[in-house]
Amino acid sequence: MSKIIDFQTDPSQYRHWRFEVDGDIAHLYMDVDEKGGLFDGYELKLNSYDLGVDIELSDAVQRLRFEHPGVKAVVMRSGKDNVFCAGANIRMLGKASHAHKVNFCKFTNETRNTFEAAGAESGQHYICAVKGSCAGGGYELALACDHIILTDDSSSAVALPEVPLLAVLPGTGGLTRGTDKGKGRRELAYVFCAMEEGVKGKRARDWRLVDEVVPNSKFDEAVVARAKDFASKSPRPSDAEGVTLTPLKRVFAEDGSVTYSTVEVAVDRAGRKATITINGPEEDAPADMASFQAQGAEAWMLRAARELDDAILHLRLNEMELGVLVFRTQGDPAKVLAHEALLLASKDHWLANEVLLYWKRLLKRVDMTARSLVAVVEHGSCFAGVLAELLWSVDRSYMMDGEFEGDNRPVATVTLSESNFGQYPMGNDLTRLQTRFLADPEEVEALKAHIGTPLEAEAASAAGLVTFAYDDIDWEDELRIFMEERARFSPDAMTGMEANLRFPGPETMETRIFGRLTAWQNWIFQRPNAVGEDGALQRYGTGKRGDYNMQRV
Amino acid sequence: MSKIIDFQTDPSQYRHWRFEVDGDIAHLYMDVDEKGGLFDGYELKLNSYDLGVDIELSDAVQRLRFEHPGVKAVVMRSGKDNVFCAGANIRMLGKASHAHKVNFCKFTNETRNTFEAAGAESGQHYICAVKGSCAGGGYELALACDHIILTDDSSSAVALPEVPLLAVLPGTGGLTRGTDKGKGRRELAYVFCAMEEGVKGKRARDWRLVDEVVPNSKFDEAVVARAKDFASKSPRPSDAEGVTLTPLKRVFAEDGSVTYSTVEVAVDRAGRKATITINGPEEDAPADMASFQAQGAEAWMLRAARELDDAILHLRLNEMELGVLVFRTQGDPAKVLAHEALLLASKDHWLANEVLLYWKRLLKRVDMTARSLVAVVEHGSCFAGVLAELLWSVDRSYMMDGEFEGDNRPVATVTLSESNFGQYPMGNDLTRLQTRFLADPEEVEALKAHIGTPLEAEAASAAGLVTFAYDDIDWEDELRIFMEERARFSPDAMTGMEANLRFPGPETMETRIFGRLTAWQNWIFQRPNAVGEDGALQRYGTGKRGDYNMQRV
Repeated sequence: MSKIIDFQTDPSQYRHWRFEVDGDIAHLYMDVDEKGGLFDGYELKLNSYDLGVDIELSDAVQRLRFEHPGVKAVVMRSGKDNVFCAGANIRMLGKASHAHKVNFCKFTNETRNTFEAAGAESGQHYICAVKGSCAGGGYELALACDHIILTDDSSSAVALPEVPLLAVLPGTGGLTRGTDKGKGRRELAYVFCAMEEGVKGKRARDWRLVDEVVPNSKFDEAVVARAKDFASKSPRPSDAEGVTLTPLKRVFAEDGSVTYSTVEVAVDRAGRKATITINGPEEDAPADMASFQAQGAEAWMLRAARELDDAILHLRLNEMELGVLVFRTQGDPAKVLAHEALLLASKDHWLANEVLLYWKRLLKRVDMTARSLVAVVEHGSCFAGVLAELLWSVDRSYMMDGEFEGDNRPVATVTLSESNFGQYPMGNDLTRLQTRFLADPEEVEALKAHIGTPLEAEAASAAGLVTFAYDDIDWEDELRIFMEERARFSPDAMTGMEANLRFPGPETMETRIFGRLTAWQNWIFQRPNAVGEDGALQRYGTGKRGDYNMQRV
Repeated sequence: MSKIIDFQTDPSQYRHWRFEVDGDIAHLYMDVDEKGGLFDGYELKLNSYDLGVDIELSDAVQRLRFEHPGVKAVVMRSGKDNVFCAGANIRMLGKASHAHKVNFCKFTNETRNTFEAAGAESGQHYICAVKGSCAGGGYELALACDHIILTDDSSSAVALPEVPLLAVLPGTGGLTRGTDKGKGRRELAYVFCAMEEGVKGKRARDWRLVDEVVPNSKFDEAVVARAKDFASKSPRPSDAEGVTLTPLKRVFAEDGSVTYSTVEVAVDRAGRKATITINGPEEDAPADMASFQAQGAEAWMLRAARELDDAILHLRLNEMELGVLVFRTQGDPAKVLAHEALLLASKDHWLANEVLLYWKRLLKRVDMTARSLVAVVEHGSCFAGVLAELLWSVDRSYMMDGEFEGDNRPVATVTLSESNFGQYPMGNDLTRLQTRFLADPEEVEALKAHIGTPLEAEAASAAGLVTFAYDDIDWEDELRIFMEERARFSPDAMTGMEANLRFPGPETMETRIFGRLTAWQNWIFQRPNAVGEDGALQRYGTGKRGDYNMQRV
């Protein structure tokens, strides 16, 4: 699996999904092209999916939010008659490398979270209309919707058959949403997850596996009625114009480096690191949301987010041997703040809201990226407001302290904005500053006094906003030693350590999916009972069950 | 590693620990016998430990609580001059099977939790006096104490060098307690966990790694002063007599079965299951705590707990191929309730408190046992009060409904007591009933009306207290089908599923250690970078670092 995976697509290129907008309701159809797998060697039968299918779904969800502000409810359904979705493709899983499996699951989980949040955050509710078999990852797709309607016939059922059939977990949130969201009794979830055949009709409702069960004859009518219900409660505007998400401008270099309009990714494969530079806006902030809307996808706040998002996904899937991601910024902090300030002042404008929410999701994507993350606050940088969040997303940060010989750029500063105190919460529902100062909530309060003031190294250090500040004499050595050290450590130990240290304190359903559930799934993805030659994933479809080592650990 | 591991010991047999009681303070010395490893092939140098060392610690902690009610503070320190503790023995880890490593870590984690809770729950506070190197599991031992005093000299340091040195995590709570308990800044924890050499003196205090740093010359004095401080605030009685934990009476049979005085373990290796029968008390409850104390370790509530605890640990480590544990009870529910009621009515008596706390720990041990757990409520059973907790600890339960041919035992019932509403919380700080009815807290409230009333199958089912109730016609088939099915599933998938479903909803430091941290550690324990031939654990001590695959997953 060495081909480059591209996360950019648009509806004209979709092979697996399509959507139709009908007033304030969109109909999103999953209709997977069997022959459209991302890699050779498997067919995507029965609406099963691989990463390529999920990239399209992710794109559709994003476009529905930005390009279709009038859509208040999205009905997700199958484009095929006999099946809703059979889940992740088993042959693909059987062939994929461990690293691909893990990253595939992470991206699908992120996509599930994206449409799960769309209802509460921006009034675009997902309703899942289930007809036919809805199994494994298919049911997990449904679980991330706001409402599941199941038709009551002899062939429509929801199921999580992973454990009995495949010796792996329902790892795209299935186990966690089953108890935490549906809040079914855990022992019934246990019974359900041990049943290959799943549960139908009224029983699915009684066990809290679906929200509504409707006779087949009334199904379409009920789905539309439910969608209208949700739409009627949405605050989204009915008459607003969308913003078209135009193709990103990207140049890929031979050495793996990528240049976007605001983001540059310099890849150093020998040093196992990538340096991501985000350039602040050169132009002044738009005067109002009308100007912002006129700029559309060119507006810096939206453009930078889309480019950074693409860069991170590209590095995750296509540059797996890079152990360290270094975040740099260059630009005018005041301009960054001005661009952000327009959105913060216009939160009740749907587009401002969407762009801020996109940054929230994007910053969570950074938090969840399994590389050692470092921020470097150089002279000439613009870690202010939204970009300052990166300083507390990363595992450590370095800041230039005082004058550096031959460096005429404006002195390095960090500037807080009001957004750092609540606009971009992490998956644990705390802000990054709250997470950073878990022991001292008052320290976070005290930081509010600094809003808007550029803090140089001494002040930023004293306020606990950066890990280390070094002067001209020590700077290069310290960074070099750190990078060399990181390149020597086991990537697995780093991944495990970062997964623990980045999420101290309270947990939410989201962090439990990425923490507890994913960690156990990754463990199972290493176990011969699942992935060995005679394991369940390899033997699937041969008519033979997996041959298991029965030792309990 | 096929020798039987025995969890029973007493101070006369200790090879690695000793304690001395001096008024209200106990001095607990770790002085590991290099030659005293549980298995051949490694030496326990530098106070490093294996499971055998931890079994003695667990025993000492338990005896300090029961046999020494007057002890209000325990000073944990090294019996060696130059080292506090070097952590888990690396050669042992390198040689041990995956299953042994996982179970070893689980038991050490449980033991850490036990003395961590002793201060808050029963006023016996642990103070860790650190002189010399305190690294890895050694520092994690310290982290579970209420207070860490570090001497300020050139050789005493705390360290978590697992990631850089061994390519594994500080998995005995180190990462989690570092941020959640000490609440150090997570980025400093990150820096600390990447340093082989650790942190000394004042910096250790500044980074919240220890509570107090004292000059060497004043160390002993400061330790005693701090112990007296803690002791002065303890509610433990100064003049009470302890209860001697006499040796358990056990008979091991050839086929793996074990018979205790109240507990029977029937092992069916071919069927991969063990049936654990707890026999209720035959004698009436002691009239008061004086009578209870006179019975000492023979009192049913204490005896049954000790026997069940030993049985579970024995099965975990010595019968790894058994996939299912079936819990049965037989006896008079009214007597169980009466024995429990004395303790509930006497909670301010230190011994009543200790016995109830022991059940709390024991039930958590059941929750954390990585086997499929089933409860079978037969006629003649006594699932009442404390024993009823088992019904909600297990993954599913079956209850006999109506008359069974040829069965003259009293009809199967479940009886709630007030203890089911708060006395034995799970690791998530919820009761098992709250966890069971996560969606409907009112259902738990409504259950209080049933306190003291024996509920037969129909009523128990209606109240949601058991998973399934079957009559004479279906009973045997249903149980047989379930057992056969379980024997076919991959044990790994079951372990992962149970680790998720048993802990829905909120998380605590404790569940995060057993969930997030342990799951990642188990994953790493499968990765070649740690455990492969050229991995860090195998190469440790050879002068060569591990040879790592640098791919990030």
